[in-house]
Amino acid sequence: MAQNFRYQQLEAWLLRGIEEQRWREGERLPSIRTLCREHAVSKATVQHALQRLEARGLVEARAKAGHFVSPRGVAARQPLSRARIEAPRPVTAGDLLLDIMGRGAAFDLLPDHHGGDLPAGIVALNRSIGRALRRQSGDDFQYYDTPAGDTGLREQLALHLSRRGARLEPDQLCITSGCQHALFLALMACCERGDVVAVESPGFYGVMQLIEQLDLQVVEIPTSSESGMDIDALTEVLQRWKVRACVVSPAFATPSGASMTDAAKQHLLELAQKHDLAVIEDDIYADTAFGPVPDPLKSFDSDNRVILCSSFSKNLSRDLRLGWISGARWHGRILHLKLVTQLASSRYLQQGVAEFIADGGFAAHLRRLRNDLQGRRDRLLALLHTWPGDVRVSVPQGGLAAWVELPDTVDTLAVYPQALEQGIVITPGPLFCVSGQFKNCLRISFAHPWDDARVAALGRLPDLLLK
Amino acid sequence: MAQNFRYQQLEAWLLRGIEEQRWREGERLPSIRTLCREHAVSKATVQHALQRLEARGLVEARAKAGHFVSPRGVAARQPLSRARIEAPRPVTAGDLLLDIMGRGAAFDLLPDHHGGDLPAGIVALNRSIGRALRRQSGDDFQYYDTPAGDTGLREQLALHLSRRGARLEPDQLCITSGCQHALFLALMACCERGDVVAVESPGFYGVMQLIEQLDLQVVEIPTSSESGMDIDALTEVLQRWKVRACVVSPAFATPSGASMTDAAKQHLLELAQKHDLAVIEDDIYADTAFGPVPDPLKSFDSDNRVILCSSFSKNLSRDLRLGWISGARWHGRILHLKLVTQLASSRYLQQGVAEFIADGGFAAHLRRLRNDLQGRRDRLLALLHTWPGDVRVSVPQGGLAAWVELPDTVDTLAVYPQALEQGIVITPGPLFCVSGQFKNCLRISFAHPWDDARVAALGRLPDLLLK
Repeated sequence: MAQNFRYQQLEAWLLRGIEEQRWREGERLPSIRTLCREHAVSKATVQHALQRLEARGLVEARAKAGHFVSPRGVAARQPLSRARIEAPRPVTAGDLLLDIMGRGAAFDLLPDHHGGDLPAGIVALNRSIGRALRRQSGDDFQYYDTPAGDTGLREQLALHLSRRGARLEPDQLCITSGCQHALFLALMACCERGDVVAVESPGFYGVMQLIEQLDLQVVEIPTSSESGMDIDALTEVLQRWKVRACVVSPAFATPSGASMTDAAKQHLLELAQKHDLAVIEDDIYADTAFGPVPDPLKSFDSDNRVILCSSFSKNLSRDLRLGWISGARWHGRILHLKLVTQLASSRYLQQGVAEFIADGGFAAHLRRLRNDLQGRRDRLLALLHTWPGDVRVSVPQGGLAAWVELPDTVDTLAVYPQALEQGIVITPGPLFCVSGQFKNCLRISFAHPWDDARVAALGRLPDLLLK
Repeated sequence: MAQNFRYQQLEAWLLRGIEEQRWREGERLPSIRTLCREHAVSKATVQHALQRLEARGLVEARAKAGHFVSPRGVAARQPLSRARIEAPRPVTAGDLLLDIMGRGAAFDLLPDHHGGDLPAGIVALNRSIGRALRRQSGDDFQYYDTPAGDTGLREQLALHLSRRGARLEPDQLCITSGCQHALFLALMACCERGDVVAVESPGFYGVMQLIEQLDLQVVEIPTSSESGMDIDALTEVLQRWKVRACVVSPAFATPSGASMTDAAKQHLLELAQKHDLAVIEDDIYADTAFGPVPDPLKSFDSDNRVILCSSFSKNLSRDLRLGWISGARWHGRILHLKLVTQLASSRYLQQGVAEFIADGGFAAHLRRLRNDLQGRRDRLLALLHTWPGDVRVSVPQGGLAAWVELPDTVDTLAVYPQALEQGIVITPGPLFCVSGQFKNCLRISFAHPWDDARVAALGRLPDLLLK
């Protein structure tokens, strides 16, 4: 949702306040007069914004009393389901996950519906890559890049991370073929067959798949859709079982978009030190932050045990296939594994991206992306608000998806094939754990611009899910 | 060596005849008159060519009798050393290999000396990739490619392979990040920890590295620099030990450039069937063939057990990082491993390469490349011929390197650091096995155009090696 008009800007500001519980369920919003004054807008503009929030069911107008946050407001309906703690176990991927991942792994409601305009940032990125290609000379093409990757790109990444408190030298970074590849190298470097790995539940299916392929075991840590991994639950698990590594996404974790507080991050690192854990930080969503970009776990890593993994797939382009890893005490082994399994990454591609960052194109792209994503999230939450019954939705402050909890009677796995018949791909909750929980949940992406086809597809879901 | 002058063309033709033993050691070459007539050149041209071969020590002029192949001609000095058969063992990579691979893995004498002009084929390839980038539209960039890769590229590859007798559907191919990545997926798919893998000796160090990382064991099969893997030795090994897989490069195997006969390929597949082996075919050098491109093992694979692995790194550009795999009965598992460890490959890159092939750009590039490589090999052999003492050299009919066997007293590992002090990177023979053999051997690349710096670097080696 573009916020070009003043009423849209005000609407978004009010919505954020509701989501962030500045005004809680049942509380009164600032008066029209106050809003006019503080935002320097006309009365008509304020009324327009309030009407739109009313239409979305987020606000109630009470005669002569003002506007109040609706008791069914989104922010009051955070998902409640929590994972159970169960003993470590091996992972067996279901056919369903493979089926969905085989459909492009984009987890889009309409995977064949490529719409919208190519963003200016991607056009600039492609020009930069084109320039790097044209700069190839002599027999450059006969040489592999070094396993760690292009120095220029690693310098840009180090600079980018330093703004978030993570002081890394370019030598502490290695370029990968995306974040999944980085997670693979991380797990391969710090675990041996049979080791137990703690993961978020609900959490990223790609990690569970890696754990299966590497013959590791998984223990699921309950994770809140507001504050991420439950550190008390992790404490309990660490007391009961020997755990080798913990994979965690402190910033806008998929599927819920939850973020950990800095205090929780520090607590996690204390536990890691006490129990000698490798901490694998999936940082892939951090740059989509609607507000300030949170500091990574890596910025608190005084003990050299946080392996930072990320990529450009969520904040720039999934088709770049470029990620990075900072491997802490395991970095040497990770470099070796990169070399042995893949030799190198494409040099011209890295040079093109490095130039794009150095030229400021990446920062400009991120500004637009964050604004677009926040608008798309708002639209999703508004659309979900029209669903009947007890529907709970996470209110992520970054990332690309919301986590939706439906009544207990709903079985999203059973709905999957029915939705597919209508050309709609849903992402059922059980994909985000190995224990079959969350069958009444699903993740819905807001990565794509909302157009008629996408709104219509989402509009068909209540009939499918809640019939 | 450019072959722009008639005497150069004739010289190269005669050299090939000697290498291919059309005229054996001590035999008489065609008379000057015959050469004039059959090649439609002047007597002066023929004399010029013969003088050059004489200067290189390949031909002897005998008064009133004509020109004879020198008893010290290159073709008569194929390397003789053979690997010993030893029991299966785990692999431990030496620091030296890591050091050399860390230097760009190009195994170039002068890794920092990027010379020559960008070939027309690479310019055309880069234009094609640029066009594919500019064709990106809408939110294409938000989608991952399917794990198997772009259909258009797989169709082109299937067509390319069908010309060599390997009838594959595009569905039987999966795109990878290079051949090393393909070999990794192949070994991961068909082996379990502790399994024994048979490899060529001398053979490709990258495979030994993978075997180490996957906790497999290796058994080395003696390999001739003329005819490749010794099938009798393989037979003996299979009788003595349980072997799970065999990695073999039937076409221009590194380091020697040897090729297996079709009969040997068929024999190998009979053994594979009898002993239930997975056969992993490293096909990466096939397209560099100076003569007809040999049929791959895969074209004889009636039993669906040959996993074909290859890439564009040796026949187009190392910086593309694009390879492919056809996984036979393991293909489903390979697709899954690609998905889990890397999700996808870059779509626009694959589309650019597919268009380059479809437009005929790749075929034109291969024609030029083969001609260039053959000239560079001739030049290398001529330069090596000036080395004193009993120096034996393979005469590859394709590939990018020759295998040089020096007197037993030479220790190439000891020379490595001394050469490095002079800015020269040599590739010592022991890198090509796990048993410490071949210390008096080294591989020398002819991938790069010969210029003064490169000739001078090679010229310094006899002093270093043979002092």
